[in-house]
Amino acid sequence: MIAEPRPAVPDPAVIDRLKAVVGPQGWLAEPGDIEPYLVETRGLYRGATALVLRPASTAEVAGIVRICAEIRLPIVPQGGNTGLVGGGVPGEDGRNIVLALGRMNRIRRLDADNFTLTAEAGCILAQIQQAADAADRLFPLSLGAEGSCQIGGNISTNAGGVQVLRYGNTRELVLGIEAVLPDGRIWDGLRSLRKDNTGYDLKQLFIGGEGTLGIVTAATLRLFPKPREIATGFVAVPHSAAAMRLFARARAATGDQITAFELIPRIGVEFAMRHVAGVTDPLSQPYPSYALIELSSSSRQAGLEALFGSLLEEALEAGEILDGTIAASEAQRRALWLIREGVVEGQRHEGGSIKHDVSVPVASVAAFLERATAAVTERLPAIRVVAFGHAGDGNIHFNLSQPIGADTAAYLARWGEFNHIVHEIVAGFGGSISAEHGIGRLKRHELTHYKSPVELEMMARVKAALDPYNIMNPGKTVPDPSSLQRPLP
Amino acid sequence: MIAEPRPAVPDPAVIDRLKAVVGPQGWLAEPGDIEPYLVETRGLYRGATALVLRPASTAEVAGIVRICAEIRLPIVPQGGNTGLVGGGVPGEDGRNIVLALGRMNRIRRLDADNFTLTAEAGCILAQIQQAADAADRLFPLSLGAEGSCQIGGNISTNAGGVQVLRYGNTRELVLGIEAVLPDGRIWDGLRSLRKDNTGYDLKQLFIGGEGTLGIVTAATLRLFPKPREIATGFVAVPHSAAAMRLFARARAATGDQITAFELIPRIGVEFAMRHVAGVTDPLSQPYPSYALIELSSSSRQAGLEALFGSLLEEALEAGEILDGTIAASEAQRRALWLIREGVVEGQRHEGGSIKHDVSVPVASVAAFLERATAAVTERLPAIRVVAFGHAGDGNIHFNLSQPIGADTAAYLARWGEFNHIVHEIVAGFGGSISAEHGIGRLKRHELTHYKSPVELEMMARVKAALDPYNIMNPGKTVPDPSSLQRPLP
Repeated sequence: MIAEPRPAVPDPAVIDRLKAVVGPQGWLAEPGDIEPYLVETRGLYRGATALVLRPASTAEVAGIVRICAEIRLPIVPQGGNTGLVGGGVPGEDGRNIVLALGRMNRIRRLDADNFTLTAEAGCILAQIQQAADAADRLFPLSLGAEGSCQIGGNISTNAGGVQVLRYGNTRELVLGIEAVLPDGRIWDGLRSLRKDNTGYDLKQLFIGGEGTLGIVTAATLRLFPKPREIATGFVAVPHSAAAMRLFARARAATGDQITAFELIPRIGVEFAMRHVAGVTDPLSQPYPSYALIELSSSSRQAGLEALFGSLLEEALEAGEILDGTIAASEAQRRALWLIREGVVEGQRHEGGSIKHDVSVPVASVAAFLERATAAVTERLPAIRVVAFGHAGDGNIHFNLSQPIGADTAAYLARWGEFNHIVHEIVAGFGGSISAEHGIGRLKRHELTHYKSPVELEMMARVKAALDPYNIMNPGKTVPDPSSLQRPLP
Repeated sequence: MIAEPRPAVPDPAVIDRLKAVVGPQGWLAEPGDIEPYLVETRGLYRGATALVLRPASTAEVAGIVRICAEIRLPIVPQGGNTGLVGGGVPGEDGRNIVLALGRMNRIRRLDADNFTLTAEAGCILAQIQQAADAADRLFPLSLGAEGSCQIGGNISTNAGGVQVLRYGNTRELVLGIEAVLPDGRIWDGLRSLRKDNTGYDLKQLFIGGEGTLGIVTAATLRLFPKPREIATGFVAVPHSAAAMRLFARARAATGDQITAFELIPRIGVEFAMRHVAGVTDPLSQPYPSYALIELSSSSRQAGLEALFGSLLEEALEAGEILDGTIAASEAQRRALWLIREGVVEGQRHEGGSIKHDVSVPVASVAAFLERATAAVTERLPAIRVVAFGHAGDGNIHFNLSQPIGADTAAYLARWGEFNHIVHEIVAGFGGSISAEHGIGRLKRHELTHYKSPVELEMMARVKAALDPYNIMNPGKTVPDPSSLQRPLP
């Protein structure tokens, strides 16, 4: 894919040209200033760079990329830097520039009648949610990092979150994109059409492309009618198999108006209660497992609470639930969600946690949980399985907290060992080793094991076709061609 | 993209090798037998071929493609041959083979708990709908040709139809595909996951790729809970602007449970009444324009009829509708749909019809209709505009029936002239010149006018990367590289 050697750290003349593109407000070079751009949330990677560029417009992005293309200087695009697989962090050799989109934060257009919004890549997700809300519309993408992640990053990683069940992943929310290609040309693909069959749907390559094919600079997003009724319940289930039967029942009974179906184990509730202020046990006694279920409708006559009530009655009779509560106020609703969010927060205080962001077919969730729990417990009996997440999408955050009192560093050193155990089971179910977080650096080498050579080769061919000099976020997502079993012709 | 000359009509030794792959039941060569594979529905094209291959398995497809790749013999994949842009018809020079998927018609698996179904490419759409129905599930793709079109063709053209509003285009209904690549290797991408962020989503290239990147041999499709309540109404609207306001109101008021929102002009109803047995005027007097609206829910407690009733009351008060009726029985519901279907059938009996399958942003539908109607009427005052279709998706079949008594051939000779008028207006609204039918041969040259050079070049690069010898359905969809403003490096 790339033949010529990379330049070393960019020379001062290049740095000056790049600075001139963005002007004095558009770059950072002092070690203290660039520090936040070099590390990621979990501290897994620490990169180096001589220059962080912060362009204010698509034209500036294009100007930067043209220079980089000319001298084959790698570019690491970065949004809110909230990613969990190291996709936005530069490599250690410093032979790159970081291109941070945060200053491109305008909402260019909101068309309420068309249920669309066009935002620049650097818009914070919460800012977009609020703009939609102010226009009596809903932008449904919602996830933990929404206060700091940027829409360009959400698109480049095809972010998921808690409302995928009803509204889809980011992919389903994007109608069009604007991108700067690896040669610096701008592609204006900002369509706002529901139907368009005029050739290959190229935006799909950039969605989830993790910045390896170009830089998404803006997008036209789908909006929805704002919910007028929301009903949220927290139910205890005897085991995850019952939870999944409940899910199928709930889909049909509510007319597919389920917005969220989150599985939470007892240990997750305990972690939340222990470490997050305001979290209390939602039911009168402890149960082995729970589901947080939310229904919503833009109709004022949806009668969701009655629907929810009769659903739970039926489920109780069928033995799918043991107990449950439906939020009677917005405050109670917030309290139920606080438990779910507290599962994530709580783990941070329980020592080392080995993470898995996996998915399996929805019908296999219960079987996967059983098998994976048995396998990791057999390897380390005192390990604490905190398996929670978007069970309605088949997406489980299968996280493993260290045994109480164990040495954290020694435990975390076994990350790869437990990944291997869990991912092999996932693969056996035809599942995915990265359901929502992407590949980045963290899982790049695993791809060569879990994807077929023919699929890896197609990825590499597409990459080489659009980024022949491999300057767009090299070292991420696409396995190195030399690692492929069958080299490109 | 392709340098070496094509072989002439394949030589007898090659023909024999290809026949041997599929066995005696798997090929047709007699002129009478191959005739149906050479022409398409509208009679726009008539191709030639020496051999129609009808493989019975993915392995046979792979065997065929390997031979064709070896000698650079072009392959024209064909499904039910119901396409409307000539995408499945071979070229006139006969330097190709036709690969028809009809014998690959097994439903490999139906997993009701997982809401998925895996079907081979040659399954008839109606067969898949019925299989889902028998398992108490819904496969929502529905369109006029459903009794003969094949799912492989639906996928390759990203088919739309009448339920896109609620369930999306074919693209949104496909979880995974199996395809034979242009070198004959099989890609098993048959995943059944709701979330999978492990690199480029390559299936998206094959969906809507019109067979130019490989041959889709099977797919895993999404199923949904079966509707238990359906409410269908036929309302008269004063003009299309009011219809579109009604649509926005209906989305919110019904909790986005609208399955169909079809715009029908008075002339369409008249055509249907005149030419289709059983079609009667749905309301007590004629009105300028109508909308057929359908709500559906898998809940038995959705109360859709009441919801529909109060929606219409509000709309009447707001002046968005003039009159309306809600079907009180399945027979009445069928009768309302018969009108919609009769619009298509009726046009066939009214002389020549110049077709446009266009889309604009939903908020621009009314303005587009006004401007385009004025423009074509100015050019030919007696032209009869039959603009109908999936207005909720912004997708209008802007069809133009010839003036009464005009010479049909002379009228149809002006096809390009009227296309140009309409497509220029579509482009002005940021619309698409092919909302659901695709590009094929019919619109291939127009693409170079309506798509940016940078986008055309990306298409050509992707095509060259995956099909370097240009043997997959050449001459379709992707403009000839020589027509691009900027040649590939």
